Amino acid sequence: MDHVNFAVLGCGGIGRRTLEVSEEKDHLTPVAACDRHGVAVDHDGLDVDELLAATEGNIDSDPADRARASDTEPRADGGTAASATGDSGVKQTGENAGVVASAQAEPTETPIDDVIAESERVDAVLIALPNFEHDFVPRVADRFADAGYQGVLVDVLKRSRVIGMLDERTETFQERGITFVCGAGATPGFLTGAATVAAQSFVEVESVEIRWGVGLKSGYEDNRGTVREDIAHLAEYDIDDAREMSDAQIEAVIDEHDGVIEFEDMEHADDVLLERAGVCDAEDVTVGGVLDLTSDEKPRTTTVRVTGITFDGERGTNTFELDDDTSMAANVNGPGLGYLKAGVRRNRAGEYGVFGPADLMPGF
Amino acid sequence: MDHVNFAVLGCGGIGRRTLEVSEEKDHLTPVAACDRHGVAVDHDGLDVDELLAATEGNIDSDPADRARASDTEPRADGGTAASATGDSGVKQTGENAGVVASAQAEPTETPIDDVIAESERVDAVLIALPNFEHDFVPRVADRFADAGYQGVLVDVLKRSRVIGMLDERTETFQERGITFVCGAGATPGFLTGAATVAAQSFVEVESVEIRWGVGLKSGYEDNRGTVREDIAHLAEYDIDDAREMSDAQIEAVIDEHDGVIEFEDMEHADDVLLERAGVCDAEDVTVGGVLDLTSDEKPRTTTVRVTGITFDGERGTNTFELDDDTSMAANVNGPGLGYLKAGVRRNRAGEYGVFGPADLMPGF
Repeated sequence: MDHVNFAVLGCGGIGRRTLEVSEEKDHLTPVAACDRHGVAVDHDGLDVDELLAATEGNIDSDPADRARASDTEPRADGGTAASATGDSGVKQTGENAGVVASAQAEPTETPIDDVIAESERVDAVLIALPNFEHDFVPRVADRFADAGYQGVLVDVLKRSRVIGMLDERTETFQERGITFVCGAGATPGFLTGAATVAAQSFVEVESVEIRWGVGLKSGYEDNRGTVREDIAHLAEYDIDDAREMSDAQIEAVIDEHDGVIEFEDMEHADDVLLERAGVCDAEDVTVGGVLDLTSDEKPRTTTVRVTGITFDGERGTNTFELDDDTSMAANVNGPGLGYLKAGVRRNRAGEYGVFGPADLMPGF
Repeated sequence: MDHVNFAVLGCGGIGRRTLEVSEEKDHLTPVAACDRHGVAVDHDGLDVDELLAATEGNIDSDPADRARASDTEPRADGGTAASATGDSGVKQTGENAGVVASAQAEPTETPIDDVIAESERVDAVLIALPNFEHDFVPRVADRFADAGYQGVLVDVLKRSRVIGMLDERTETFQERGITFVCGAGATPGFLTGAATVAAQSFVEVESVEIRWGVGLKSGYEDNRGTVREDIAHLAEYDIDDAREMSDAQIEAVIDEHDGVIEFEDMEHADDVLLERAGVCDAEDVTVGGVLDLTSDEKPRTTTVRVTGITFDGERGTNTFELDDDTSMAANVNGPGLGYLKAGVRRNRAGEYGVFGPADLMPGF
């Protein structure tokens, strides 16, 4: 496979770790990274070590700003709110400075547009932005499409309903030459891909059970956005609540659960992504998990169990199990970059539109 | 995905079960099947039920004929030996008649050429022929290439060294528009694909251990060719021995092992296929298995264990496990057809050459 130059939108836990993991992957060069405060571009390759060191503990996750940032439909640079912080044009190194703390970054009020402006030389863009409106990722995609971007867009979203919004854009993506890879993180993503493989013994899949465990004590600071999004999956809250809640309110929810939050029947896009790949019906997929913010140990082993009927009439359950010592970050970012590369291969072969992880598996 | 018309070369255990499993798959139509006695072609779709019923218990696996059949480099229709049996032109329904026992089949001395003659309307060809010379599958591919076939060729071979022979033909395949998918059965194939997924937690894979178990008491009659090939993997025998041995000699080997044969450090192409996909070095892959001809229960649970180091420095082992109730046939033929469809998708996108199962996974 030829070389892949990629950009990352968002420098939170997922964005930064993706940059870090990409250092270990051949043929992958990060050439741009942004958050709402700034943008770093180097077509010869970013200095990832410097960028990570400079931004460590400097992640921008203020909920008030985020609420404003997500309320951006009419804005030219929706999804960012650098102007709202009043710090444009001034290098910050203090709290909430984000990527601008890196010597490679410049402050900007229009970080996404700035990346789009460079995108002719970018093969793939990973969207790792805070995501508290269902149509947020689709709208980011629209902006790339409107600007004539031809390449790959990858997200690590979770919600089933977003896939439908992306599907509505299939024709546009096909016309423009965009290959959109959706749900390419751990779940959906890694575990959906594993389910697709595990299903191959069967001519009829009866159920796919995905159970995840995440221990996030030391990683909490880096992943507050992810935790906030997870809270929106609790029965008592929705995505609007999660967006509007203050950090203190989020902490209160965590405390109510003694730091260990269990999720059942999550609206995770594994269901629609497995259905669209022809593996099983969406209703036969269940996703649940346990998030433990008091420990780095996983509170539950992450497993995928696929039950089905073989052509010769036997019922069986194939199982995929992740070692407890593999972190959430490892299980998001490795597959994310893998699917990104798979997307680039499709794109170069002229295959455009919307692809889920299971679509990028053998066409079972 | 659009419709796929496919042909099967060989009507032994794998060929016949592939036809059966294809009945359960949308968008897959078997249009041709052959063995060395005859050929059945119907571009509207074979009547699989009739063909299977007619050929059940009628599998051609006479070792003497096979020995002759494999000694075919100079022959126009290498790989078959209908003429050697002296029955050409005469419908047989008795022992060893093979596919000619079906009302849809015609006897022929040139079954492979007969399929090639129809191949303009065939999207993919599964090569499920007895395979007792290392260059046998590559030579079959040559014949399709020489005849101007443009489409997909799929094999379920096992030996590592054959992959190199196929790789030598990459340029020819690319010129002709052939997408060759190699090692697309259970192992390599299914389990190599699973290993590729399981590897995604890691930035460095230290080992891939593939352990299989097959219980083949009632399935023995249908899979004598596979058992014969497996015996060639024992330290005391090579492929020439396995080809030349009489059925009685094969039975004697089985009896020596009390019907349960254990294999260690098999030359299975999982190693080179994982290396070429960039997952790990070939030398870090081990394949072993236990074949039990006295029981239909698996003597050992089939597992894939992938051990590696995460980007954050943890060592872990991800595991993929097949239910003991899934048969070898289920685990060969489902993935085989899945990889076939993946190959067709690549072919239609203009991607030609040699692909292993792991190559058809996301480009990790």
